[in-house]
This record gives sequence, structure tokens and C-alpha cells, in this order.
Amino acid sequence: MASNGETTAGKRAPQRVALIGATGSIGKSTVDLLVRNPDRFSVVSLAAGRDHAELARLAILLRPEFVAIRDESGFEPLKEALVGTNIQIGAGREAVIEAATWDADLLVSAIVGAAGVEPTHAALQLGRDVALANKECLVCAGAPFMRAAREAGARLLPMDSEHNAIAQALGGADPATIERMIITASGGPFRTWSREAIEKATVAEALNHPNWSMGPKITVDSATMMNKGLELIEAHHLFGVPAEKLDVVVHPQSIVHGLVAFADGAVTAGMAVPDMRVPIAHCLGFPERLDAPTPRLDLAQIATLTFERPDHERFPALALALGALAAGGGLPTVLNAANEIAVEAFLAGRIAFGDIARHAAEAIDIAEKNGEAKEPASVAEALAIDHNVRDRSRRVLATSRL
Amino acid sequence: MASNGETTAGKRAPQRVALIGATGSIGKSTVDLLVRNPDRFSVVSLAAGRDHAELARLAILLRPEFVAIRDESGFEPLKEALVGTNIQIGAGREAVIEAATWDADLLVSAIVGAAGVEPTHAALQLGRDVALANKECLVCAGAPFMRAAREAGARLLPMDSEHNAIAQALGGADPATIERMIITASGGPFRTWSREAIEKATVAEALNHPNWSMGPKITVDSATMMNKGLELIEAHHLFGVPAEKLDVVVHPQSIVHGLVAFADGAVTAGMAVPDMRVPIAHCLGFPERLDAPTPRLDLAQIATLTFERPDHERFPALALALGALAAGGGLPTVLNAANEIAVEAFLAGRIAFGDIARHAAEAIDIAEKNGEAKEPASVAEALAIDHNVRDRSRRVLATSRL
Repeated sequence: MASNGETTAGKRAPQRVALIGATGSIGKSTVDLLVRNPDRFSVVSLAAGRDHAELARLAILLRPEFVAIRDESGFEPLKEALVGTNIQIGAGREAVIEAATWDADLLVSAIVGAAGVEPTHAALQLGRDVALANKECLVCAGAPFMRAAREAGARLLPMDSEHNAIAQALGGADPATIERMIITASGGPFRTWSREAIEKATVAEALNHPNWSMGPKITVDSATMMNKGLELIEAHHLFGVPAEKLDVVVHPQSIVHGLVAFADGAVTAGMAVPDMRVPIAHCLGFPERLDAPTPRLDLAQIATLTFERPDHERFPALALALGALAAGGGLPTVLNAANEIAVEAFLAGRIAFGDIARHAAEAIDIAEKNGEAKEPASVAEALAIDHNVRDRSRRVLATSRL
Repeated sequence: MASNGETTAGKRAPQRVALIGATGSIGKSTVDLLVRNPDRFSVVSLAAGRDHAELARLAILLRPEFVAIRDESGFEPLKEALVGTNIQIGAGREAVIEAATWDADLLVSAIVGAAGVEPTHAALQLGRDVALANKECLVCAGAPFMRAAREAGARLLPMDSEHNAIAQALGGADPATIERMIITASGGPFRTWSREAIEKATVAEALNHPNWSMGPKITVDSATMMNKGLELIEAHHLFGVPAEKLDVVVHPQSIVHGLVAFADGAVTAGMAVPDMRVPIAHCLGFPERLDAPTPRLDLAQIATLTFERPDHERFPALALALGALAAGGGLPTVLNAANEIAVEAFLAGRIAFGDIARHAAEAIDIAEKNGEAKEPASVAEALAIDHNVRDRSRRVLATSRL
């Protein structure tokens, strides 16, 4: 089959790819790139949370060996949709892990939220290379997660635009020579809003991101700037850089995504138009490059790039995440779990935008008072902390009404 | 001897460094960095053109084994100044070659102009690693020069800020994956001037560069934008990228120095405050990093980076150089020689600023008419073309008066 001029693998067997989180925003972009390179990739398994119709459509398009739907009520409609194919079908938590650990060369881990941790960790433990779009693996369980990767000899390719840019900017640099590592923040939809206006922002306003088209959870995290705090925690684990060398700069155009400053004053940066297919293509192609159909960066056309310091007054979530990173232990896990439940409550219209960070701050206070701030020794321990904090957050927020 | 917290080489023997062009702008910055890292570097030879007093001062500071002055009338004063030391002294063209090929681990080639080609080439032929600040080696004799480096197994580290930034942005990337390679231009002092005003610019105006403190020849080349054309020719040879993938973007703040765009839409960039000590430190430290006392880049403080397309109408030298690069053969050699003599004539007050590019264009026309546009097969052949063109340019411009 011809491949439209993309880099092809010649006579080499196609790379076997497992994709979990196939029906989300990152999953769809990944499928777009996989489909354009049929000689190079063979999709062997797919998993999704609830959208069985879209999962069935993708299965018919990509012909994997196995598909899994996390929501068990999706099993029958998925089975019906795939009648006449020889695609194996599973449903539930275990089936998603089966999809993640399906015999493959690369797992693309694109499930949003803590649900992505267990299947991704299972693949890592098998030594599977992972292109990681899920943030919670590192935020919720960073230390044990990275230890599992090291021990199993698995390679982690960061698919998030900021960390991918930093991986590219680093080249093969020795981490000891890094003086600062900086991720950029668009500033989100409320960059220029007053604190009072942000406090009362609506769901529609929070979802109206100026640069990126992403899932709702991440878009709200971008509006609170919690996402930048979580990304600093991720960067700490991915690149082994201590908290005091990490920084955020607000860059509304989202063209420069990450920077690395070295001891001699040189800075390398990863740039691209804000299109998730760029970092996804980098991960899929690595160590080669795919010829991706992404818009090309034209700096003269963009004309102006601006940078400003983040405002911790108007965006308390950022300082909160930075504090959790500095304090270490289990606090990033607590922060992440409480934030995810608070964002759910906000999206459901039960709490105000300003309540998201307030709830996360309260969750950290409670965890510290209860002595739950200890570093989780394993992914299971991290997930247990996560589970407890979620339960508590759900109870606290269940009765909230705006 | 303590080294002020810089990266030290532990018990490793200091790296033996030969430095030619020691008293120029790049030479002085190199000395600044070498002096700050006495455990790591030992300067074994120095060469300069005419400034025997400064060369003597550097020799007493750095205690090399050998010093050379190209201007033979500098021999006696240099000898007198170094009485009582055991530093060997030479004068003339051969002595500079001797300094360049002195037993060393690294040659820093910082002579400005075509005078740098012969000594640098001699060191390359010995397989010596070269940190290259001289532009003419690649512009005047690029193909044979790079062939000599390859054949002798010598490593070329580009010290020019743009090429150094690109080398850093490339990491170890496969050149085949490069879609575009872009160097930035400050636009020089005349970026916003009318064509008429540029035409009549004075020497003082041309030397008033907004961002960089450099030698007069390079500063004038920056004002005409000839330097960007020459740098594209250099990039072509250094990185093996064809002319059609090379581009220039005007960036008045001189913070982003070079960019590499890949087939997947990702772009990596090399950035730094405009301080030549950054690329010099990178070359001296490579593959490690020196802890250089350079100002650190603070994007939030700089706040705004702007980019625009170069204006070929007002800066005909850029299009001229691009044309010579595209036509190939010996035309870059002709262009470079004619330009250097024209810049000398401009600095001496004998021709107008606008005459520089006009003279270079005429020299290219004459060379094409005379059938002198053939690719030089060796560095010697390139130097012969260079010599002939200079002679012709000197004759043409000798009688010029403003």
C-alpha cells in the first residue's frame, strides 16, 4: 500500500502499536497519523472508556486483534458492531489492561485521568516502550512509575507538547548540565481576566481555550493553570531535574512549548504550531521522523511571540502545585486526585471555578494533618492514596450546589 | 588552582588549546573563558595579525609555548616584550600556520577574513578538532575544506552564534529528517531605514550594531546583511543541507539564533542573549558544558520576540549571496573576496555603503563572463580564485573616491 510520501520502513515489518484512550482527543490524532502510515504501523489493540460506537468505528478502520471497552455496558453494542470480524472483544478494567499489555512494540497511553495509570504501569512492567500522553502516571505515581520503567528497561516518550518539546530540546544532553528547565503556559482563557471574574467563570468560558483543542478535563486544568503545576511534576520525574530548576513562563501564542537552559548560558527550545499531532508524530516516528500533515511553523507570519511571568495571585492552583512538588512525598498524588474530582464537580455545574483550587488546597491540608503525605512506595500505594482522596473529595463535593 | 566553581576536569590533563586570532573580538572572549577555567585548559599557542602589544600581554597572561605575529614588523617589539620568558616567537604567514598546527587538542580559529583559511586548513589536515569562528574557511573554500575535515577525521565545532545554535538545536538528528534550517538576522542598524538612507550610510552608522559587539568587518557585513548570505553558505557546508532548505528570518532582538524544522512539524531552536561567550563556551566545553559567566536568558523580562521576512529590495547583498549559493561553483568564493575588499574600501571612506553590494555583484558578473565560476577543487584553488578577485577588486576600487 502506498503511503503518500511519508517516511516508510522499507521491507521492515510494521511497528505493532497498542492504543488505549483511542476515542479521546489524543487518541483520535494518533489514529489520524497511524492511518496515514499503513506500511509503518499495525494497530494491534485499542481501548476506550465509554464511547463504544466510536471504538467500533476505529476497530473496523484499523482491524486490531483486540478491543476493550472499560464501561461494561458497552460490551454488547461493541460485539454487535463487530459481528463478522475476527476482532477479539473485552470489557471492564481488566480488559483495558489486556489491551495495554497486548503484544506490541509501542503502547500509546492516551487515557485521560487516573484510569490510565494501572494499564500503563502494567505495560511498563513488561518492558514495553510507552508514548505517554496520560499525565496522571507521573503526577500521581511518578517515583514508583519511573522506577518500574528503569527496572524493566522500558523507554518513555513524552507525548505532551511541553515535555515532548523539552525531550527534543534536550537532544541527548547530560541532565547534570541543565541549569533550568522551563515549560510554557498559554495562560488559558483567563490570562487577562481579573481575579473576581475568574472566580465566577462559567463552564463554557473555561472550555474556550485560545490555542489548544483538548479534552474537557485538561482544558479546565489549563484555565486554572493547574495543568502547568502538574506538568512541572511530570518534568521532574521524566527528566530527573529537581524542583528548584523547574519554571513556568506564560507565552500566549503557544509556539515555544519547552526550553532547556544550560550552564554556559545556551538555551535550546522545542517549538511548533499548537497541534498535538506534532508531538504525537515525534513519538510515533522516534528515533526517525514521520512526515506529518501538520501546519508548518512560519515565524515571520506569526511575527510576535510574547512572554510573561505567571501571576500566582490570580492563578492559585499553580502555586499550589508548585508547593506540592517542593514538599514532595504523597502531596502531588493528593493534589491530582482532589483536583480531578473538583474539575468533575465544576463541569457538572456543582461548584464555582474558584472552588477548584480551593478544594485542592483543602485536600492537601487534610492529607498533611492526617499524616497521608508520605511518598508512595509503589504504584499500588499511590493509587490507594488517589482512591482515598477521591472518595473524600466526592463526599465533600457531593452536596455542593452553586 | 581553584576554578571558581566551573566544571572542572578532575584529575584529567588540561585540554591543550591553540588560539589564532587571539587579539580580535572572538579571541578576547575566548581568552576570558580559558582564563576562568585554568584546570581545564592549557593554552599552547597564540597568533595575531598586527597587535603585538596585546599579543604580548596575552602571552604573559597565558604562558603559551609559542606565539606568532603575522605582521613581521611586530616581531621585534614582541620579542622585547617577552624577554625573560621561555615563549618561542615567530612572525609572518608561516609562523601563524605553525601556531595553528602546534600540538594541541583543539584549535580555536578566530582570525577574521581569508587570512584564516590557510592556517585552519593546515590544522584540519592534521586531524585537529577546530572550533571555527572564521567564516571564510567555509564561504571561500567550503567543499574542499569540509572534505579535508572528513578525510582527516577532524571535528568542526561552529563558533558563530547562528551555526552554534543550529548545532545545539540539531542534537544528533539525522540530516535527512531536516525540512528547513533557518538562521536569524538582527537586521542590523539599517533594518528600518529607507533604501536611499542606507545607500548613503556612514561608517559610524554602519558600525553601530544594535545587538552585537563584533569586529568592524563583520559589523559592516551585518549592516549590508551580506553576513547572512555568507552564513547560509556556511550552514550548507557545515550541516550538509541543500540551498533550497535554507532560509533567513529577521529577528531584531537576536535571542533566537538558529532553528531546525523537521518533517513532523517540530522545530528546535538555539537561543541565548547576544553574547559571543555563549557559543564560544559551548565549543570549548563540548561535549560537556562550561559554567560560563554570561548573562542568562530571561524571556519574561525580554517580553517580546519579533520576526519578519528579510527585505531583498533594501538589502541586495542578501539576495546576491543567496544567488551565489544557488548557482554554486566558485561564485561564493568570488562574492566573499569582492565583498571583503569592498568593505575595506568602505571602512577607509573610499566608497559609499551602497557600493559594497554593487561591487560584489559586478565581481560575480565578471567572474561568470570570464568562466571563473568553476567549483574550486582544492583549498589552494579556492585561495587562488580569492587572490585574483581581491587583486581585481583592489584595482577597481583603488581609484574610488567618495
